[in-house]
Amino acid sequence: MATVKIPSIEEAERNPLVKAVYDDIRATRKSDFINNIWRALAFDPPLLQRTWTQIKNVMAVEGTLDPLTREMIYIAVSTANSCSYCVHSHTSAARAKGMTDAQHAELMAIIGLAAQTNHLVNAMQLPIDPEFEVK
Amino acid sequence: MATVKIPSIEEAERNPLVKAVYDDIRATRKSDFINNIWRALAFDPPLLQRTWTQIKNVMAVEGTLDPLTREMIYIAVSTANSCSYCVHSHTSAARAKGMTDAQHAELMAIIGLAAQTNHLVNAMQLPIDPEFEVK
Amino acid sequence: MATVKIPSIEEAERNPLVKAVYDDIRATRKSDFINNIWRALAFDPPLLQRTWTQIKNVMAVEGTLDPLTREMIYIAVSTANSCSYCVHSHTSAARAKGMTDAQHAELMAIIGLAAQTNHLVNAMQLPIDPEFEVK
Amino acid sequence: MATVKIPSIEEAERNPLVKAVYDDIRATRKSDFINNIWRALAFDPPLLQRTWTQIKNVMAVEGTLDPLTREMIYIAVSTANSCSYCVHSHTSAARAKGMTDAQHAELMAIIGLAAQTNHLVNAMQLPIDPEFEVK
Amino acid sequence: MATVKIPSIEEAERNPLVKAVYDDIRATRKSDFINNIWRALAFDPPLLQRTWTQIKNVMAVEGTLDPLTREMIYIAVSTANSCSYCVHSHTSAARAKGMTDAQHAELMAIIGLAAQTNHLVNAMQLPIDPEFEVK
Amino acid sequence: MATVKIPSIEEAERNPLVKAVYDDIRATRKSDFINNIWRALAFDPPLLQRTWTQIKNVMAVEGTLDPLTREMIYIAVSTANSCSYCVHSHTSAARAKGMTDAQHAELMAIIGLAAQTNHLVNAMQLPIDPEFEVK
Repeated sequence: MATVKIPSIEEAERNPLVKAVYDDIRATRKSDFINNIWRALAFDPPLLQRTWTQIKNVMAVEGTLDPLTREMIYIAVSTANSCSYCVHSHTSAARAKGMTDAQHAELMAIIGLAAQTNHLVNAMQLPIDPEFEVK
Repeated sequence: MATVKIPSIEEAERNPLVKAVYDDIRATRKSDFINNIWRALAFDPPLLQRTWTQIKNVMAVEGTLDPLTREMIYIAVSTANSCSYCVHSHTSAARAKGMTDAQHAELMAIIGLAAQTNHLVNAMQLPIDPEFEVK
Repeated sequence: MATVKIPSIEEAERNPLVKAVYDDIRATRKSDFINNIWRALAFDPPLLQRTWTQIKNVMAVEGTLDPLTREMIYIAVSTANSCSYCVHSHTSAARAKGMTDAQHAELMAIIGLAAQTNHLVNAMQLPIDPEFEVK
Repeated sequence: MATVKIPSIEEAERNPLVKAVYDDIRATRKSDFINNIWRALAFDPPLLQRTWTQIKNVMAVEGTLDPLTREMIYIAVSTANSCSYCVHSHTSAARAKGMTDAQHAELMAIIGLAAQTNHLVNAMQLPIDPEFEVK
Repeated sequence: MATVKIPSIEEAERNPLVKAVYDDIRATRKSDFINNIWRALAFDPPLLQRTWTQIKNVMAVEGTLDPLTREMIYIAVSTANSCSYCVHSHTSAARAKGMTDAQHAELMAIIGLAAQTNHLVNAMQLPIDPEFEVK
Repeated sequence: MATVKIPSIEEAERNPLVKAVYDDIRATRKSDFINNIWRALAFDPPLLQRTWTQIKNVMAVEGTLDPLTREMIYIAVSTANSCSYCVHSHTSAARAKGMTDAQHAELMAIIGLAAQTNHLVNAMQLPIDPEFEVK
């Protein structure tokens, strides 16, 4: 149960801006699958367009990090922010980009360890070492 | 100002378990620098030892992810958990492992974007697409 | 599945303090609907009463912010804290108080953007500009 | 101490894209003040530009919510995400847009109350009332 | 630097409601120390009064949990919510109520471990075992 | 629906390291019940083993805090981190260790109150009183 109505693809695509975004999603991903976030965002086409444009700019263009690394960083943030849908969608995306079980386990071990030391450090309220200063 | 006393290295090393951990930190990192988290944790040597052992097991051994990728995942979690000290220490570690400004910017862009869609999705409470099921 | 037993309204109202709170909820809201949070809190009548009293004091009395603005702020916090039930109940309340789809979309855009810059800033650990000082 | 170098305005503006963004910030806000987030983001001009464009699109254009309401929602999210810099900068912006002490107090009371019920509900793991379904 | 003005005790107590709350804080705690949260909240006397009344009701009356256990639970939540001031004030309170270094270390070990498994479980999105159902 | 496959106990125990961990879980807890986290972690036996070893070291050995207090602290952190599964499993464990309804209600009241003041304080960005310094 969502807090917004999730239209079918057909309903959503009656809006030409939505249709244009969906076509770009399909072309960029080389897949016909339009997942729920894009269907739900159709209720505000400009927000849909801005969100997709950003995802495309950050996740789908050439850059200095490879696509799988980007997905693993996305999973890490989504886990810490407790976004169930996002963890599912980006774990699925990471697998599609080749994440192995061993990499997934290592990702989870790092996420869990980081959370542990984050909380230890927040409990101790440590001052920052001057050696960490960026030069 | 911390919530635990942070001893000097000399004071801390009077405890032989602390000394053994610090020696292992120095040997593993090939550096004499013992940063504040390790000094602060000296107030409970077994907790110090368990924390370091985990860091070493997860961050410093061979694995399927390269050392820089691990640090960037650590930064992502620490940012989402709002741990100031951890963001500083792991950004410093990532730079020491070769993170360029371009990679740092890309990491931040992914973290920011993930947070944005995490919140959009949590506001919409989306059901999970059955296509995301792990096979 | 909850971690506390959720009684029926009838069972819950056998306790006179619970009955008094429920009557006040009905009178304040001009509705017979008692939603799950109030049923669940019946397991500790004083906690139920204190929680309702606060909600009433903060959300249902005259003040400087209009009722819809208050609900949108509530949604914003509940989204950031990843409270699924709260996002649902306060989105429902906001609609009942007249929130349009356009306002909902704008609310979500602000929430998402704030989360994005929150994470960017936490990743950069920025010092606070002296110009922000309250005068 | 930040995790990125914060250049002076003069240094930053040597990059023409940065200069163009800063000029737009000044024109949009009718003020010469460029606060630290914009200076820090200068280390990656396209990220600076994308972030500013979003802020402008969401916070500075005509919409269905008034400017002060938008700032209060921003403060609510930033508080829940524990972003110290963001709470400072948007409280300052809200005051500049006319937020009174009484409104500030009411905003804080709502934020605090929402956090309280968010945690109570997360501790009880309540099922969502079917009455909340969007129609 | 705070986002509200923090008056001196003398200024704050010119308001009779503030003075009454401060007198109750002093009597309840058997101490003259009024810490910053109470000074800062003086800018809205009813919010000050409601907040103090709750603290008193939950933390200072007889109950089923002893005072030190309550403070340790408070520290746990404050750490997870990354509230620096709260971690400091409640760690100080816990020490005043007798928390030993060994108890503090054990508290931190539990907080860190919980955070670790919270993140592991959120990354795996585990279904809830039916055995956990409350009876 | 999880992001990793959850094997049956029989499948999982074909791996001898998994079997050894499960036998230790059964012996430590004096129960045959292996809940989902342990089944799910079987996909990476060393991560399973490290996680269980920590849980055992922190939660199941003699210490300065009694077992029920430890579980309540675990619930507090899990609630703040919005980990649904963890709140369920540790509430169940706390009940098994004797948590009464009155204690549960008091725990929830503290968690809710802490969250409220955490957010109030984060909204006000209070400086830390020098009196809180650890001596």
